[in-house]
Amino acid sequence: MEKLTNEFLEELVTECRPYSRDGEVVKDIPGQSPADQNKLGVCMIDLNNNVYSAGDTDMRFTIQSASKIVSLMMALDDFGKDEVFQNVGMEPMGDFYNSISHLESHDVKKPFNPMVNAGAIAVSAMIKGKNLDDKFQRILKRLRQITHNNSLKINEDVYESEKLKGDRNRSLAYFMKSTGAIAHDIEESLDLYFRINSIEVTTADLAKIGAFFANGGRSLKTGEQLIPMDHINTIEAIMMTSGMYNEAGKYAVEVGFPIKSGVSGCIVGSVPGRLGIGIIGPAINKKGNSTAGGELLQRISRHLDLNIFSVIRKE
Amino acid sequence: MEKLTNEFLEELVTECRPYSRDGEVVKDIPGQSPADQNKLGVCMIDLNNNVYSAGDTDMRFTIQSASKIVSLMMALDDFGKDEVFQNVGMEPMGDFYNSISHLESHDVKKPFNPMVNAGAIAVSAMIKGKNLDDKFQRILKRLRQITHNNSLKINEDVYESEKLKGDRNRSLAYFMKSTGAIAHDIEESLDLYFRINSIEVTTADLAKIGAFFANGGRSLKTGEQLIPMDHINTIEAIMMTSGMYNEAGKYAVEVGFPIKSGVSGCIVGSVPGRLGIGIIGPAINKKGNSTAGGELLQRISRHLDLNIFSVIRKE
Amino acid sequence: MEKLTNEFLEELVTECRPYSRDGEVVKDIPGQSPADQNKLGVCMIDLNNNVYSAGDTDMRFTIQSASKIVSLMMALDDFGKDEVFQNVGMEPMGDFYNSISHLESHDVKKPFNPMVNAGAIAVSAMIKGKNLDDKFQRILKRLRQITHNNSLKINEDVYESEKLKGDRNRSLAYFMKSTGAIAHDIEESLDLYFRINSIEVTTADLAKIGAFFANGGRSLKTGEQLIPMDHINTIEAIMMTSGMYNEAGKYAVEVGFPIKSGVSGCIVGSVPGRLGIGIIGPAINKKGNSTAGGELLQRISRHLDLNIFSVIRKE
Amino acid sequence: MEKLTNEFLEELVTECRPYSRDGEVVKDIPGQSPADQNKLGVCMIDLNNNVYSAGDTDMRFTIQSASKIVSLMMALDDFGKDEVFQNVGMEPMGDFYNSISHLESHDVKKPFNPMVNAGAIAVSAMIKGKNLDDKFQRILKRLRQITHNNSLKINEDVYESEKLKGDRNRSLAYFMKSTGAIAHDIEESLDLYFRINSIEVTTADLAKIGAFFANGGRSLKTGEQLIPMDHINTIEAIMMTSGMYNEAGKYAVEVGFPIKSGVSGCIVGSVPGRLGIGIIGPAINKKGNSTAGGELLQRISRHLDLNIFSVIRKE
Repeated sequence: MEKLTNEFLEELVTECRPYSRDGEVVKDIPGQSPADQNKLGVCMIDLNNNVYSAGDTDMRFTIQSASKIVSLMMALDDFGKDEVFQNVGMEPMGDFYNSISHLESHDVKKPFNPMVNAGAIAVSAMIKGKNLDDKFQRILKRLRQITHNNSLKINEDVYESEKLKGDRNRSLAYFMKSTGAIAHDIEESLDLYFRINSIEVTTADLAKIGAFFANGGRSLKTGEQLIPMDHINTIEAIMMTSGMYNEAGKYAVEVGFPIKSGVSGCIVGSVPGRLGIGIIGPAINKKGNSTAGGELLQRISRHLDLNIFSVIRKE
Repeated sequence: MEKLTNEFLEELVTECRPYSRDGEVVKDIPGQSPADQNKLGVCMIDLNNNVYSAGDTDMRFTIQSASKIVSLMMALDDFGKDEVFQNVGMEPMGDFYNSISHLESHDVKKPFNPMVNAGAIAVSAMIKGKNLDDKFQRILKRLRQITHNNSLKINEDVYESEKLKGDRNRSLAYFMKSTGAIAHDIEESLDLYFRINSIEVTTADLAKIGAFFANGGRSLKTGEQLIPMDHINTIEAIMMTSGMYNEAGKYAVEVGFPIKSGVSGCIVGSVPGRLGIGIIGPAINKKGNSTAGGELLQRISRHLDLNIFSVIRKE
Repeated sequence: MEKLTNEFLEELVTECRPYSRDGEVVKDIPGQSPADQNKLGVCMIDLNNNVYSAGDTDMRFTIQSASKIVSLMMALDDFGKDEVFQNVGMEPMGDFYNSISHLESHDVKKPFNPMVNAGAIAVSAMIKGKNLDDKFQRILKRLRQITHNNSLKINEDVYESEKLKGDRNRSLAYFMKSTGAIAHDIEESLDLYFRINSIEVTTADLAKIGAFFANGGRSLKTGEQLIPMDHINTIEAIMMTSGMYNEAGKYAVEVGFPIKSGVSGCIVGSVPGRLGIGIIGPAINKKGNSTAGGELLQRISRHLDLNIFSVIRKE
Repeated sequence: MEKLTNEFLEELVTECRPYSRDGEVVKDIPGQSPADQNKLGVCMIDLNNNVYSAGDTDMRFTIQSASKIVSLMMALDDFGKDEVFQNVGMEPMGDFYNSISHLESHDVKKPFNPMVNAGAIAVSAMIKGKNLDDKFQRILKRLRQITHNNSLKINEDVYESEKLKGDRNRSLAYFMKSTGAIAHDIEESLDLYFRINSIEVTTADLAKIGAFFANGGRSLKTGEQLIPMDHINTIEAIMMTSGMYNEAGKYAVEVGFPIKSGVSGCIVGSVPGRLGIGIIGPAINKKGNSTAGGELLQRISRHLDLNIFSVIRKE
């Protein structure tokens, strides 16, 4: 088993960077460009607040679908497990992440889980707040608290773009409205969903979210229990079964701890009781996951024996 | 956190037995009868070979789909990960476990994973052996070694019955033959599949399989590494994402360690580095899982803090 | 073969009225009430303008999906066959009429045909006009010309209601927008679609539309060719394969000439070269077709030998 | 409107032959070869037994899926409409002709219609006879009677090949067995299905079948009513909605009379009250239809005004 150091991470980043050739940078997200094709960065933070990082850690990028774990955390905190999962399932799904067919073809018309678009829209729609702005500020406040980063904010260009090109998500939302799966105002729910996706972060921010999860929902700074551990465990289990789009099963096998990806090429990971990880590698494959980032994650897990099914570290 | 004792288990069994009312005993498995409706038994074995049990532990039942983890173990041992997963995927699936549609509707025509019928048939077809009988004897020998139970054997009545009523599985197999997903002889592959499903076990046998997995593939008696740990971890990850039919996600959340169920009402579980569990509760719900057994498993996990995402025991 | 008279129709209406017990009046269409459960009316007009009718012919009802043949006629007239069918298919579909899955699951992302909701929305979106109001007035003008009924107009209550409860259609439309199947403004396209569905008609109006089709697109009054016969034949063929939701095949067999139904319980039919039919029977079955109306249609076809596959009348 | 002569047909064949470039000859049917790529032949027979033909009319080929109308005719004659359609639907289907998903995804587990493989297998399974051979001889006898061709027989090479490569159809059949849609012996039912598909015919044989249908089920030679006209009309309606695989809708529009195709590149057509058509053009497109044959059919219909929705010939 290797020791976690900056040098060790640098070496892995160098080894994995070439895998970015197998992916492509999403074009229609403002601020992303083909020039980012070979970018790769990683930050890891353990429960003692030790920070390790390597590669392009200065990149700022939108959180995209990695925010789905944040929305779920907010909704669980606002309503508890029972009420949240009356609106969304917790089963993994074989279909593509923006699938609408599954809403039509299954007996219970609620979305499969909170990691697919339909499910995340239904979950976002629940988040408490006096109005749209208040809801978003509550989320931002919580995220700033978790990341100890008070400058965390929305990328307005990305947000405007998401709203404009959001017809597929709009279709999902209206479908759920028609079946009663969402009772809230659709345009407002979508607006909140687009805002959450457009929050700008760094790998360090993501690593802190991961470490907060790994710490069972307690602040790494103060030790205060911000979110009940049971909610954190629920989110981690769902990340494990559904966090990586249609490669969730592969990553459960090859990485073996809860992770969630976004189409900006980011990945947030959490090794319970040990550490958090943030990765950026903008070139993604057809399934929506960073190619170099995914490879990097597999090597990190293997070399540091982070797989939660492994019994080596338990000896 | 509670302490694991026979008394503790007895208490939970008493609490959970009434949940069997929500399920039904499968009628067309020989030897199963409505009289078993309220049966519930559990056996747990830790890595020091301590055995804890309660309830109807004297029941003998066929392993059914819990055998899917055994078939996968054999195939991985015979061919390695790369070759096995050329024939079957490792992604969770939203469809029902005996679904045939997924073979038709997805680009790659291989079955989603080795825990659904189509996948298990494709995996069984790979297992090495001079002939059908030799293949089956190899599996039985391995299982006897793992369970230290040399009297482990097939239930001939169940096997004959499985062959007779196997038209849905036959359909799956011929479909895979037509797309090239299986190259082997179909009737022989199905015969082996039916035999494996018809192996008769007790909760103690299942607990020993679970403990063997929890021990990373080493014999609990001799410490010998019988199966490489990497293969065990692969199987556990797949159990986590796909082991409980269309309730895999729910059980990942509510139980939080690898388990696999069968329609006889059995469940085998493995807590990495800690212990193995075998449960029988013949009354199953529409998704194929024991209702009392599933409830029991959730309480055991909660009370003994066995959830692998929990950080309590890591402190 | 019977002779077409008012008495003959009265007899059939009396025979078929009891079949309305097998259906139910759609509740959420303003102006429809349970009191209409047993209503049944029919009007038939031959190419010599002879009018035959029986039953509740004084009823006024909204045209609903029977308007899909009108929208298709307008689009064909505006753009021709090639251009229209670049935006919509002409194949029958096994799924339900408001299915969204088919838009996702097939290679070509266009809707199956102009008789399902998605297809009709795509077709309506094409209709020419300076603005929404102009488009609708063009349609109304054409329909008035065909029906010789200058008082034909929209039912404002139904229109407002359609807009309010239109989330499923909105979902379909935004989905098509996201795949490029519709390039037009979605809310405007839907508004036009809802207006067309809300036009109020009588069985006589529908019979005149049917007779106009039966006359190959020529005015029954003036003989003027208002729509090219090739367009009419195209519409009739599509009515034949897809006009009765998921009972199109049954009606092709049992009635044997082009018909199109709507959820108000109306049916419009056209026997090429012979006559047009309008039927109202508000109690519809789960597939969306009038139960008494459907039965009546079958008996009319059989007794008057209107089946186009029959060779009796050709002798 | 053109006049039907051999010269007229020769001209059209010459015009349409180049369309064979858009298709491909099915390789795994014995006796078919790439050398047949440009072959195209047509035979038309009117109700006065006048025969018109052009092109490669000397070709012998297996009837393949065009036999589905023969199986349906036999089953209707043996059991009547009600009983046959308890085992198979009559609705057109949007899925591919050998789809298995539709058997799983719809409430009623019976196949959509007798023109898709699953439906034709279910229908064949019904045909009466003391044993497999007797069943097949009954079919052959009927076909010889209709075609006045006593040398009509099976192509043994094709039959053996169909049996060998029949895994997809075997899968369909076992699936239907598992759901109860077929109660008969599967291997025997499939064997009969493969035999029927392997009957060797010429365009003249197909034209005679078409003319027999066009004549309402009466022998063209003796005038004897061999099959009730109602059964013939039923088959013709189903051909109209489902006879050309996933191009049935297109052909209803562009040809406008009942036709059925087979993967050997053959097409049989029937214009009620007028004539029968047989076409061979071995190069087929991805949907299973002869490219040159389909084009030829469209031109024949247009030039001779055979579209049953047209009102020209009714004037």
